[in-house]
Amino acid sequence: MQNSKTLKELAEHLGGKVRGDETCRINGLAPLESASSDKITFLANPKYAAKVAETGAGAVLMAPGGESYGRNVIEVTNPYLAFAKLLTLFYVRKPAPQGVMDGASLGSTVTLGSDITLHPGAIVGNGVSIGDRTVIHPGAVIYDGVTIGSDTVIHANAVVRERCRIGSRCVIQPGAVIGSDGFGYAPDGAGYYAIPQIGIVVLEDDVEIGANSCIDRAALEVTLIRRGTKLDNLVQIAHNCQIGENCMIVSQVGISGSTKVGNHVTLAGQVGVAGHLTIGDNVMIGAQSGVPNSVPANGGFSGTPIMPHKDWLKAMAIVPRLPELRKTISALEKRIAELEVQRTEA
Amino acid sequence: MQNSKTLKELAEHLGGKVRGDETCRINGLAPLESASSDKITFLANPKYAAKVAETGAGAVLMAPGGESYGRNVIEVTNPYLAFAKLLTLFYVRKPAPQGVMDGASLGSTVTLGSDITLHPGAIVGNGVSIGDRTVIHPGAVIYDGVTIGSDTVIHANAVVRERCRIGSRCVIQPGAVIGSDGFGYAPDGAGYYAIPQIGIVVLEDDVEIGANSCIDRAALEVTLIRRGTKLDNLVQIAHNCQIGENCMIVSQVGISGSTKVGNHVTLAGQVGVAGHLTIGDNVMIGAQSGVPNSVPANGGFSGTPIMPHKDWLKAMAIVPRLPELRKTISALEKRIAELEVQRTEA
Amino acid sequence: MQNSKTLKELAEHLGGKVRGDETCRINGLAPLESASSDKITFLANPKYAAKVAETGAGAVLMAPGGESYGRNVIEVTNPYLAFAKLLTLFYVRKPAPQGVMDGASLGSTVTLGSDITLHPGAIVGNGVSIGDRTVIHPGAVIYDGVTIGSDTVIHANAVVRERCRIGSRCVIQPGAVIGSDGFGYAPDGAGYYAIPQIGIVVLEDDVEIGANSCIDRAALEVTLIRRGTKLDNLVQIAHNCQIGENCMIVSQVGISGSTKVGNHVTLAGQVGVAGHLTIGDNVMIGAQSGVPNSVPANGGFSGTPIMPHKDWLKAMAIVPRLPELRKTISALEKRIAELEVQRTEA
Repeated sequence: MQNSKTLKELAEHLGGKVRGDETCRINGLAPLESASSDKITFLANPKYAAKVAETGAGAVLMAPGGESYGRNVIEVTNPYLAFAKLLTLFYVRKPAPQGVMDGASLGSTVTLGSDITLHPGAIVGNGVSIGDRTVIHPGAVIYDGVTIGSDTVIHANAVVRERCRIGSRCVIQPGAVIGSDGFGYAPDGAGYYAIPQIGIVVLEDDVEIGANSCIDRAALEVTLIRRGTKLDNLVQIAHNCQIGENCMIVSQVGISGSTKVGNHVTLAGQVGVAGHLTIGDNVMIGAQSGVPNSVPANGGFSGTPIMPHKDWLKAMAIVPRLPELRKTISALEKRIAELEVQRTEA
Repeated sequence: MQNSKTLKELAEHLGGKVRGDETCRINGLAPLESASSDKITFLANPKYAAKVAETGAGAVLMAPGGESYGRNVIEVTNPYLAFAKLLTLFYVRKPAPQGVMDGASLGSTVTLGSDITLHPGAIVGNGVSIGDRTVIHPGAVIYDGVTIGSDTVIHANAVVRERCRIGSRCVIQPGAVIGSDGFGYAPDGAGYYAIPQIGIVVLEDDVEIGANSCIDRAALEVTLIRRGTKLDNLVQIAHNCQIGENCMIVSQVGISGSTKVGNHVTLAGQVGVAGHLTIGDNVMIGAQSGVPNSVPANGGFSGTPIMPHKDWLKAMAIVPRLPELRKTISALEKRIAELEVQRTEA
Repeated sequence: MQNSKTLKELAEHLGGKVRGDETCRINGLAPLESASSDKITFLANPKYAAKVAETGAGAVLMAPGGESYGRNVIEVTNPYLAFAKLLTLFYVRKPAPQGVMDGASLGSTVTLGSDITLHPGAIVGNGVSIGDRTVIHPGAVIYDGVTIGSDTVIHANAVVRERCRIGSRCVIQPGAVIGSDGFGYAPDGAGYYAIPQIGIVVLEDDVEIGANSCIDRAALEVTLIRRGTKLDNLVQIAHNCQIGENCMIVSQVGISGSTKVGNHVTLAGQVGVAGHLTIGDNVMIGAQSGVPNSVPANGGFSGTPIMPHKDWLKAMAIVPRLPELRKTISALEKRIAELEVQRTEA
């Protein structure tokens, strides 16, 4: 699977600089501890710098100016990113496009870009448009009127409902649902009348959606996920939400209807966010937290309901000691009562 | 997409009453702020009443006796519900029935009602019965012996396992799973023996199930969702549960096995309910709460474990101040000790 | 559906011992309260022993030496397990193998064991290997290079991505996703670069995965679920996790990346576990708890963050009384201040 490359070639690919033997040939990546001489490894965390002296790797990716211990080095400003890019280079092979394969199902007036692949069991509705090099895996269902950009991958059994728009270079993991009906009902005395959800979902470019995550279509307009944002598995985005650019929404997070999330926001696992809120840019919310109110930009918060993360750590340190505190208070109460009696008697 | 209607026609459709020009023609809906003269808008919240004076809408849905500011009005008892009904009227077109389309798969002895649509890639097992006008989208899988009522929509890649029964006018969003095996195991010393889950799931009429939600079949009898109840996305209903009528079960709620939930119960997002409990009618449980015990009818609760919602709000207001309270207690302790010493010395 | 068996036959099947009429014929199971004379029932909980006197059942499964009240009895060491085994015997019929059915899709160089069933709409990629008697339901998608053992059942619309390995006697419920890409990104200044997830998922033998659960493939090596472990619905297992043998992972649990869970661990519903932790053998974590640090073997924990379960119960009993405690503290403060004033004045 691997082709070998010289350090010179790798440095060019990464925009880095070789110290040592530029002609050294590398055919893959490995950890510092276990790499052999045909592998390149990386030093991202300075606390492991001493391991470079002992690695068997043929070369080490490290930040400029790091101690090489006589090893071949490629200097790059972000060794972890460089490692990820070499993983792609050595191990990821985009399969040759297969076109519309036997057992794929196409509706009428479908627009197909060049070099697409529609796998067996992929179902594409009427009036769908699919960009160049996009791949639709088996069992994925694309409803009528959907638009999908270029270089996007839609994995098996994902669903994109009617008229939704998916950008370019998006990845939809298996079983994800884009454009399900928003959860909107009007009480009618006897029960609930389902409010038609006639809006859509728009995923901008470079958005990734985790397995079995759900993004509801808007009631009237657009549920929007802006460019570069990544959703983990089993995430719920309710109708009319707007999620900013380059957010990280970790597994099992739920965001209620009409909430707006800024750019570069991180919501850790199992966070819940109430509806109709605004979360500012660069906010980080700790795992399992509950967000009942809007949050200004730039801060870290935890707890249900949330408070500044440091305050939460301090408060949670007290919780296991609450029974002891209560006893202390009772004891104080008795001592005070005794003092008061003595006072009166005095 | 829109057909225009006169206010007279709309009022008849809604059971409302026109004040103003009955012949005014309307072709759609829009918000108070942005509506043009061919659109109707609605006033549900009295605090926006003054906006009626400034709206460009051709007519306004409002409660009887509201100030019209000279606008055309349709008086209805529930303007929000009327708005939802007009959304349906203007924007929802039920597609013409397609019958069994190419690429749908039918087992033996299937009973099909009139005017059904089975999309390409829909898979229907042996002995299945499907009511009139029901639609089964691509990739939905209906196992053997399932019964589905009339006017029900089963979206793409949803699964209904063997012998389950789905009512009429139900909507199953994409990826939902009805009738998966309940999570029941008997320890056998070495590991776990899977207890056969031979019961079924019954969804009564007008039940809606969100995307990727899961309802496990009963061990022996029936997991039951009663009429009119709506489940949001990613909800878990364990085996043997009974959920009452017209409940709202919000996203990512989990209900453990054999719990009975009453009518008109609301469980907000990410709530967890333990097994073998009874939740009374008209109960509301706040988001992320944990319910470890049965709950009597008619109340609002929050927290893990739950307490009355108001108590929870008050208690949570103290949590961030726990470190400060602990310091206060320590300070009091010192002051008392000092008083006691002085007492002794006196 | 039922065949009748004599008590002698049932006792042999269970490795138990008959007291009473060995020739009594039984055709099914029922609860103590409602069983008729052709049914067998079971007594697992001693507190219901008196009900044996009144049951109409033809026989009772009970532990050796239990009071029979004159009923026919099969003595077994684990009556609940015996009940489960008889459920299987009487009610579970493995359908006859169907081979590769019309409408199933096979890639190239697929290896098929004997007596397999590939249902219509099942999609099997290139180079897949499937063991004897394994069943793949409609819409399940098996990517290239996957290996599946014998006697495994993969339900409708489940997905197993490339190169993952599934053991024997596994059950994958509908919609589960095995081998989705791990959630790993390297910031590149502008946004996030997706780190290729080139590892796989391995499920050992006798593993069961709930509906719509997700197990991410490892970044480089293996996400591992060891033999006998059961996952409920909507569970998230992140990349590089290792879950031990015979664990019970209840619905909506989320385990973050690279965490190692020991053997016989129980994680109750909606628990969240942080990344890079080690959870020891025989640990039990209560519902909705949050686990921020590693946990040694053998203990029960609850809360966010977790503490010993008993401590958590005591602490949570105080939480609703926090407002009252705060008032008490304020009152004490005043009384002390008064005492101090009196002291000074004295």
